[in-house]
Amino acid sequence: MKNPFRKALLDRTPTFGAWIQMGHPAIAEVLGRVGFDWIAVDLEHGVIDLESTAGLFRAIEHYDAVPVARLPFNDPIWIKRVLDAGAGGLIIPMVNSQAEARAAMDQAKYPPLGRRGYGYSRANSHGLDFTPYIQEANKEIAIVMQIEHRDGIEALDGILDVPGVDGAFIGPLDLSGSFGKTGQLDCPEMVQALSAFRSSCNSRGIAAGMHLVHPTPQNIGQALGDGYTMIALGVDNTLLAGAAQAALASAHSAIAPAASPAR
Amino acid sequence: MKNPFRKALLDRTPTFGAWIQMGHPAIAEVLGRVGFDWIAVDLEHGVIDLESTAGLFRAIEHYDAVPVARLPFNDPIWIKRVLDAGAGGLIIPMVNSQAEARAAMDQAKYPPLGRRGYGYSRANSHGLDFTPYIQEANKEIAIVMQIEHRDGIEALDGILDVPGVDGAFIGPLDLSGSFGKTGQLDCPEMVQALSAFRSSCNSRGIAAGMHLVHPTPQNIGQALGDGYTMIALGVDNTLLAGAAQAALASAHSAIAPAASPAR
Amino acid sequence: MKNPFRKALLDRTPTFGAWIQMGHPAIAEVLGRVGFDWIAVDLEHGVIDLESTAGLFRAIEHYDAVPVARLPFNDPIWIKRVLDAGAGGLIIPMVNSQAEARAAMDQAKYPPLGRRGYGYSRANSHGLDFTPYIQEANKEIAIVMQIEHRDGIEALDGILDVPGVDGAFIGPLDLSGSFGKTGQLDCPEMVQALSAFRSSCNSRGIAAGMHLVHPTPQNIGQALGDGYTMIALGVDNTLLAGAAQAALASAHSAIAPAASPAR
Amino acid sequence: MKNPFRKALLDRTPTFGAWIQMGHPAIAEVLGRVGFDWIAVDLEHGVIDLESTAGLFRAIEHYDAVPVARLPFNDPIWIKRVLDAGAGGLIIPMVNSQAEARAAMDQAKYPPLGRRGYGYSRANSHGLDFTPYIQEANKEIAIVMQIEHRDGIEALDGILDVPGVDGAFIGPLDLSGSFGKTGQLDCPEMVQALSAFRSSCNSRGIAAGMHLVHPTPQNIGQALGDGYTMIALGVDNTLLAGAAQAALASAHSAIAPAASPAR
Amino acid sequence: MKNPFRKALLDRTPTFGAWIQMGHPAIAEVLGRVGFDWIAVDLEHGVIDLESTAGLFRAIEHYDAVPVARLPFNDPIWIKRVLDAGAGGLIIPMVNSQAEARAAMDQAKYPPLGRRGYGYSRANSHGLDFTPYIQEANKEIAIVMQIEHRDGIEALDGILDVPGVDGAFIGPLDLSGSFGKTGQLDCPEMVQALSAFRSSCNSRGIAAGMHLVHPTPQNIGQALGDGYTMIALGVDNTLLAGAAQAALASAHSAIAPAASPAR
Amino acid sequence: MKNPFRKALLDRTPTFGAWIQMGHPAIAEVLGRVGFDWIAVDLEHGVIDLESTAGLFRAIEHYDAVPVARLPFNDPIWIKRVLDAGAGGLIIPMVNSQAEARAAMDQAKYPPLGRRGYGYSRANSHGLDFTPYIQEANKEIAIVMQIEHRDGIEALDGILDVPGVDGAFIGPLDLSGSFGKTGQLDCPEMVQALSAFRSSCNSRGIAAGMHLVHPTPQNIGQALGDGYTMIALGVDNTLLAGAAQAALASAHSAIAPAASPAR
Ligand SMILES: [Mg+2]
Ligand SMILES: [Mg+2]
Ligand SMILES: [Mg+2]
Ligand SMILES: [Mg+2]
Ligand SMILES: [Mg+2]
Ligand SMILES: [Mg+2]
Repeated sequence: MKNPFRKALLDRTPTFGAWIQMGHPAIAEVLGRVGFDWIAVDLEHGVIDLESTAGLFRAIEHYDAVPVARLPFNDPIWIKRVLDAGAGGLIIPMVNSQAEARAAMDQAKYPPLGRRGYGYSRANSHGLDFTPYIQEANKEIAIVMQIEHRDGIEALDGILDVPGVDGAFIGPLDLSGSFGKTGQLDCPEMVQALSAFRSSCNSRGIAAGMHLVHPTPQNIGQALGDGYTMIALGVDNTLLAGAAQAALASAHSAIAPAASPAR
Repeated sequence: MKNPFRKALLDRTPTFGAWIQMGHPAIAEVLGRVGFDWIAVDLEHGVIDLESTAGLFRAIEHYDAVPVARLPFNDPIWIKRVLDAGAGGLIIPMVNSQAEARAAMDQAKYPPLGRRGYGYSRANSHGLDFTPYIQEANKEIAIVMQIEHRDGIEALDGILDVPGVDGAFIGPLDLSGSFGKTGQLDCPEMVQALSAFRSSCNSRGIAAGMHLVHPTPQNIGQALGDGYTMIALGVDNTLLAGAAQAALASAHSAIAPAASPAR
Repeated sequence: MKNPFRKALLDRTPTFGAWIQMGHPAIAEVLGRVGFDWIAVDLEHGVIDLESTAGLFRAIEHYDAVPVARLPFNDPIWIKRVLDAGAGGLIIPMVNSQAEARAAMDQAKYPPLGRRGYGYSRANSHGLDFTPYIQEANKEIAIVMQIEHRDGIEALDGILDVPGVDGAFIGPLDLSGSFGKTGQLDCPEMVQALSAFRSSCNSRGIAAGMHLVHPTPQNIGQALGDGYTMIALGVDNTLLAGAAQAALASAHSAIAPAASPAR
Repeated sequence: MKNPFRKALLDRTPTFGAWIQMGHPAIAEVLGRVGFDWIAVDLEHGVIDLESTAGLFRAIEHYDAVPVARLPFNDPIWIKRVLDAGAGGLIIPMVNSQAEARAAMDQAKYPPLGRRGYGYSRANSHGLDFTPYIQEANKEIAIVMQIEHRDGIEALDGILDVPGVDGAFIGPLDLSGSFGKTGQLDCPEMVQALSAFRSSCNSRGIAAGMHLVHPTPQNIGQALGDGYTMIALGVDNTLLAGAAQAALASAHSAIAPAASPAR
Repeated sequence: MKNPFRKALLDRTPTFGAWIQMGHPAIAEVLGRVGFDWIAVDLEHGVIDLESTAGLFRAIEHYDAVPVARLPFNDPIWIKRVLDAGAGGLIIPMVNSQAEARAAMDQAKYPPLGRRGYGYSRANSHGLDFTPYIQEANKEIAIVMQIEHRDGIEALDGILDVPGVDGAFIGPLDLSGSFGKTGQLDCPEMVQALSAFRSSCNSRGIAAGMHLVHPTPQNIGQALGDGYTMIALGVDNTLLAGAAQAALASAHSAIAPAASPAR
Repeated sequence: MKNPFRKALLDRTPTFGAWIQMGHPAIAEVLGRVGFDWIAVDLEHGVIDLESTAGLFRAIEHYDAVPVARLPFNDPIWIKRVLDAGAGGLIIPMVNSQAEARAAMDQAKYPPLGRRGYGYSRANSHGLDFTPYIQEANKEIAIVMQIEHRDGIEALDGILDVPGVDGAFIGPLDLSGSFGKTGQLDCPEMVQALSAFRSSCNSRGIAAGMHLVHPTPQNIGQALGDGYTMIALGVDNTLLAGAAQAALASAHSAIAPAASPAR
């Protein structure tokens, strides 16, 4: 069960991920076929349940993309269940202190690194690959901490020092909110925080991650130039909406000014 | 229950529809919010079951788009059940003769026009709007015949003469296959057939429909110019795939030639 | 697998059924616990799929009510699949001729009475009760023909003479529509048709069934007095709506005229 | 996204809600069509998952009722996910102290009032209405604290003083249990507690809420007279069961004493 | 999309399949991981809907087993929809005449071999592999006719002569029923019919298939010796039940005679 | 609602349970029909959601087996919701201290023993059996603590002394991990821990439970001999996999060495 996503994180080779909030396996098949390196199932924002998560993982794996989950919270139940469902990577949201990072890691790793419980599950082919799985899981599953609060920025060095942290994923919007400046992504506090984030990651050789909700050649180039190597491109709903809006706008243009649309 | 979609068909006012093959209600919500006039749930190609169809209709109606279904077949069970689920329009595939058109209409209309059975259902608010529904349904639900075989082209006048036909929807790819020329959409047989289709529709004042699977300003303008007024733009999976491919291509460009992607 | 519902039909002992259009197993549990003799899952009007039907049957059986299905159509696939799902009774809609009744029976019975296919399924505990099931099924599963068209009334004697018919279920609203008098349940044609229905059933000792969509002590007494012994009482959505309307009306009364409701 | 339910709470105008424990969207459609002001999805008692919750919200919104959720617990994951699913109101169960009320509010409000995370979700039309949503959500979503333990009664003033509390919802049965007197709703402790509850709400102008599980004109009038303005009427299962029992009782009466039912 | 299952049929190389009646994707994962060449989803007996079928196909494909469906009936809707869901093989039940075989083939093949409709679907990666799929599908998807009635035995040569028939699958139990001898698998009629079946297949080089519902080394060896090359082993429910019964029997033995079990 | 499973625990009469990780109700039906005394739905390992849990309970109850849930965690939300779904027994995983055991019991019991909230739910027939249920639940629902960490072994006496503990269930694999010796089930630490576990249970008359993931006559006999009375036999996926592997191995043997399989 070699995990190319985790290897790329450690090597700091750029990878590009997709992001699923509308939990239909056909969406995962489309995104997998398009060729993303990894696909994140967003369990924080969105209404995807665990059974559906497993269904999405099935579709993702078939296309050799790595199934990743952004968890709803730094929560022991979600960590264990999503891993057992077969996640190849976890993004733990809102990690604000070294203690929180340790707690997440403790749940995510089998002994002696942590106290994840052993059990047959989808992750080990329902028991048929149990032994190799429990031998490899601690090494192969990527654990990424999301930093999205000023407290997390302050605690960043301690967080990144927790053994097993494979990447740090910035959450700019929530971070700006924690400064009382929601959406002011270029305010001085944000500029300083993002700079601190990049240099902490860089000095430790920890992969830095970012989600470009509305990706453009410019912001992708900027992110790569800033040293981000784990880059999510768009969201399923956003990609669909953008393409649908463009098509409908073309149509509405085509009938104007001669006629106005039916509604 | 005035149906603006059927009114636009009768008035030959252009309307633009979306097309759902991946049956998740969030997709319907995105497409509804974007502002399509009607949204077709494709029950022919795709794996959407009836309960999911009802869920999609719920999402579509909320945004004041009209829920339409392209049925799997000219089949009495699917006609009755999809209507009871709340469809505002039906596209009946592969109608090849007047007899087939009559059979479809017979199932789709309450007596005395046909023999649709009466019953409480989602379409009439689970019985709470039963009387107004059964009084209006024959008048307000749009019935569209899909013509996608050379036999259907030959029988077209007879098909369009069946009382209750509100539109005719061309199926170019299947039509080309029926000439033994799959995908040769500009072959002489197709040119002639499409011309015959348009003039039959035109001479009777019947709305002509077309699905632009990959819509562009050019082909939308062409379709409008050809007199098509019921135009579907893209498919959910195609719109998503196109946008995802574009984003990923931008990303891959951004790292070349300095580096190659992780996979 | 003795079936008290079929026995009651043959004995013409009154039984009372519930009717499910909203396919949630909790609804089946409530109705089962309330104590109906049988519970019909309505696959004609409503959007219930087959997997959901099996889930409803599970809930119904637990309360010792007999699971019955009103099929979407006199259709071989639905007959076989719903029987394999575990139905204890079938109501075949819109049976208009002896040939149609024979066709339904042919699909519903194992050889030599018909040509239902043998297979492991939920009905025989997934194979664990296969032999007793296939030995008893022809005898124990109730087959009821729904008569809801003037053609069915005319063909009634022939329909009732088909071996295996355990009951005849009247469909008054559709029947009135077939006379061109939708909803005029007391028009002369209807009076005559219903009288003919009752006397045909009576003369053959075949149970007569009726669905009282809005049951009252009066119409229940009337139905029993008319000799109906298989009586469905209400629909899940209707019962719920009626009770909810009553509660809300009480509330609105309580605040008027001193105040008006918030909406 | 003006929320008439929250406005009514603040104005102390009576509103009437329905209560869903059986998680089928058709139930929500029936209750929405009947005309309740708001409809609560009960995630505490009942087995409704999050995806189903979103489906219920879809049905509720279509009828212009406000979707409310009673959460399983005062829990950060459920607060954030149910809000992102589109809730217009939350009932937080078992709030026993000011600290608990503050913790709930902290999760329910965006900065600077709290630390709810920003994200595209169903609540903001999958991102298409993101900016207006995050600007309005803190103002428009109603947060109601359920008081159902003697500790909560003692801490009531502190709880109601937490900024953002829009209503207080009494839980009489659990409250009686906390006094060791389960179901003795008229015992002196209860009389005193309910009186204290009403007067605390009243003195602060906070809306008081109550669930009449078995509503009657009498208890509705009593609740209104006591100053309750947020009143839930019945439960889906209770309303259905009551109506079904009445119908079946009528039927059983109609056949007695002449005959006894089949079971 | 080379299909090793169809190739093995044409080469008459033995393949072993699994059989799913309980439609959970984890079952498909277990059976896929165990290493079956193909896995049949039984849509005839069992209650699996189409969306679930697609989910099973996803799980099956991931393990490089070929997803096959036994259809509920020789029905155009099920043929087209299951193919679009991604089936690599179809088993058409109860084929009794050459005309029926031709009808099935007509629905299963794109023009010019038949009249399957073109459309984006899961089978062609939601359109992303549309062109290669429609070019290969007629060649790569295996079509197997199930012979399970004396009429089918009589018409066998005509059935096998229909171009595109890749295999013939015997249905012994239904066949015995058609002789009026349900379950008498060794009666003279059956012996003669099975012999005729094998020699017809053999003389044309058509693969013969059989389902060993309770496989043993003996009956597997027998089937291979008789020339069957497409062999299904057990059913999911039967395999589970047998293993569970064995475990429970061991347990009950272990406590007897010293003690009896709790129930 | 007498619970034979809890009675057997108290009497220390051996009972045998099945274990479900693949959440399909047909699996529960097969295992119920086979005759297990109780059936555990594994919510810790596996991806079963709450609605599916209710569906499994429905199937289990129908066969008079007692539905038990192994929870994902010692978590108040899961305890309350699974009980309301109708569990007859709970296995609380990873109980490591008396305080944790008390916390679990507090959530699992109605006042005055704990603070479980009262509400209509599936467990009390959606309110129709509310009063008897709340009177009996504290007495009839079995609460079993899973001991699977060295801390739990050290705290065992305190855990077992918590009023309401009906059984203790050993978790050998996790326990070995807590000693840093994953899978070394016969190491001295394990031998000592298991001996301590059995004698603590024995001295208090508390039922000891064990899960034999791969049951054999030998290990069943051993477990009974060691005094275990609550014994789970296999897992659904393991039983299925073992039987499928055996069938496929027989098949592969039958064609070797004469021929090799197709893949
Ligand atoms: Mg464990
Ligand atoms: Mg009818
Ligand atoms: Mg058969
Ligand atoms: Mg965030
Ligand atoms: Mg077509
Ligand atoms: Mg409570």
